[in-house]
Amino acid sequence: MPVNLQAPDPATLHAVPGVRIGVAMAGVRKANRRDLVVFDLAQGTQVAGVFTTNRFCAAPVQICQQRLAAGSAVRALLVNTGNANAGTGADGLARARRSCESLAALMGLAPEQVLPFSTGVIMETLPVERIEAGLPAALAARRDDGWAEAAAGIMTTDTLPKAASRQMQIDGHTVTVTGIAKGAGMIRPAMATMLGFVATDAAIAPAALQQLVREAADLSFNRITIDGDTSTNDSFVLAATQQARHARIESLATPAGRALRDAVVAVSQQLAQAIVRDGEGATKFITVQVQGGRDEAECRLAAYAIAHSPLVKTAFFASDPNLGRILAAVGYAGIGDLDQGLIDLHLDDVPVVARGGRLPSYREEDGQRVMKQAEITIRVHLNRGPAETTVWTCDLSHDYVSINADYRS
Amino acid sequence: MPVNLQAPDPATLHAVPGVRIGVAMAGVRKANRRDLVVFDLAQGTQVAGVFTTNRFCAAPVQICQQRLAAGSAVRALLVNTGNANAGTGADGLARARRSCESLAALMGLAPEQVLPFSTGVIMETLPVERIEAGLPAALAARRDDGWAEAAAGIMTTDTLPKAASRQMQIDGHTVTVTGIAKGAGMIRPAMATMLGFVATDAAIAPAALQQLVREAADLSFNRITIDGDTSTNDSFVLAATQQARHARIESLATPAGRALRDAVVAVSQQLAQAIVRDGEGATKFITVQVQGGRDEAECRLAAYAIAHSPLVKTAFFASDPNLGRILAAVGYAGIGDLDQGLIDLHLDDVPVVARGGRLPSYREEDGQRVMKQAEITIRVHLNRGPAETTVWTCDLSHDYVSINADYRS
Repeated sequence: MPVNLQAPDPATLHAVPGVRIGVAMAGVRKANRRDLVVFDLAQGTQVAGVFTTNRFCAAPVQICQQRLAAGSAVRALLVNTGNANAGTGADGLARARRSCESLAALMGLAPEQVLPFSTGVIMETLPVERIEAGLPAALAARRDDGWAEAAAGIMTTDTLPKAASRQMQIDGHTVTVTGIAKGAGMIRPAMATMLGFVATDAAIAPAALQQLVREAADLSFNRITIDGDTSTNDSFVLAATQQARHARIESLATPAGRALRDAVVAVSQQLAQAIVRDGEGATKFITVQVQGGRDEAECRLAAYAIAHSPLVKTAFFASDPNLGRILAAVGYAGIGDLDQGLIDLHLDDVPVVARGGRLPSYREEDGQRVMKQAEITIRVHLNRGPAETTVWTCDLSHDYVSINADYRS
Repeated sequence: MPVNLQAPDPATLHAVPGVRIGVAMAGVRKANRRDLVVFDLAQGTQVAGVFTTNRFCAAPVQICQQRLAAGSAVRALLVNTGNANAGTGADGLARARRSCESLAALMGLAPEQVLPFSTGVIMETLPVERIEAGLPAALAARRDDGWAEAAAGIMTTDTLPKAASRQMQIDGHTVTVTGIAKGAGMIRPAMATMLGFVATDAAIAPAALQQLVREAADLSFNRITIDGDTSTNDSFVLAATQQARHARIESLATPAGRALRDAVVAVSQQLAQAIVRDGEGATKFITVQVQGGRDEAECRLAAYAIAHSPLVKTAFFASDPNLGRILAAVGYAGIGDLDQGLIDLHLDDVPVVARGGRLPSYREEDGQRVMKQAEITIRVHLNRGPAETTVWTCDLSHDYVSINADYRS
């Protein structure tokens, strides 16, 4: 029951010159579903990525990080769903490397030029033979306009594929940014989302690209949470094929750099919000704004305490304005010297709390009216500084429990 | 659906010389329920307490902390359920003080000799007139053997009252420790539980009593979590009426001190575990042991990450041995230099993971067998040091969502 989210119209997803995408059925976990995606990146493409901070990171995450750190000239991304290849020890690393070797051999590349990505159940052995058997079909299926199919191919418990696309002009040349992501559960990205792939044909220097992928993650995937569980497989990759004809962007602080940054951030935010809208069991899309903090870090503490609280989330599911639960979450967020007597709370445009106490003007029916909406903004003002932040989350419903109690069955 | 928990048999709850308890109906939130409890403590009683670290702590918590810090000769505890008097600002403080003044006047005490406690819905005005109207009936009902009735009187969403009692010999004199607690939801005590009251007739010096209440809280209420939401009202109070005839305990490091400590810890642990057994929607009682940490702090990080993970908790609800979720939680627990290649995992006596990878000997049906039990121990070994810790939690079920979506209705 996604919140104000629809499957992307393939016609709105612009192809990115230099990127071809092939999707195939490998039967990784279930038969007869497209579970294998290959991105073929043109020579000269620059790739940057950010990955989970989970210390139990999956085998493919470890390999991606090594290859990007070593400056590999990445030419292909290999993605499977159905198996996360996490909690699999040395055997998992060997299987991930073998899948890259097989794809590299078919494409005439070195193994280091392939980045592997996996999503699905943790602590099960990756069926690498099935992946290898599916690779020729994926390569044969390569198309410029494969984005919608790829978005469907990387889903796990997502109910809808997630994709976004923008075009802009730089130096009179059309530049495209298109991306896909998957999410649904185990979503509390600590550097990135479960899986996000964004590509552009922009020409951009490696250092600026690395800065851009971090900024885009911080403004999008690093601002969402569904259940507070940070995945073992979070990966967000930005590929720039350099095929657009404008002058190469050396810095994001130029007009061209800002234009590209805005487009990449917009695509990333749309994907991140789509993950929340399609969160496991979600019935509400909730924006949590915390303002008036001394620094952004303490605003984030408060925002995430609210966004993770099962009591806040179940109250939103019930459309019950039991708003004291929001104050309680702010109180235990870990801001050591917080003064409760300074705190204000709004629910959308309804003032609820001023200076730590319920406003005499606040009427339960006003809170009730807002709580019944599908999209709600919680705004907390700490009144102790200039910083602010925003995170996006969803409610906690019976369906979340059902989905996660039944996931493997 | 509490897990292996029954209502206490009143005959097993020993009266504590120097403590009389009166319970009455005040109609704080609902009519015709006993929602008001008064503890009458004999002259000379020493009282110590620990309270929530939530910065949005309730008005009664603030007053308790002030009065205990000022060394008030506490003679009465006044407890209401149905309203938490939290998020109520200066008006809430005034109402809590007024309820103490009224009880003090009826008992011939100074207002500072009364400690107030509230539990229930946050951010609603305390109906102090109803509490005042109920006080004479509560005082008239005072009895030595009122513990079982008091345990029922402080419940909110608890399905069963919680009480425990022990007796021991010190210097040939019988000494009693009896206590009650309430819990059910918003349970992740940061200093204590929602509400816990333990009394003893032991003679004990104030400094030793203060040390004892902290140690008992650390070994009991500070080791449980249901939903990770730290309450605004957590309070745990230990009252020693000094009426037993043994020589006064000056230090916990004496035989008499150790005997009392063991009894208070046992009563506190039984109450804390009862809170988990009766956690909102609980169907499983889960013990999380983390061993082999460098210090206890990092063991706690890992144990609480597991115990708070909605994905772990829903898997236990489903009796699904989706045990990779436990590894993922350890990985994001915040232990910065954790080496996943050292981690072992047992489910009860079943070895599941060694050195970060699934054991070839592990069979899904062995995990399944343990997961179906009502009581399960998760044991994680970090293999990097000598420290260990244990926390207790429950699973996350449909009923948790139902209870918290419907709590106020």
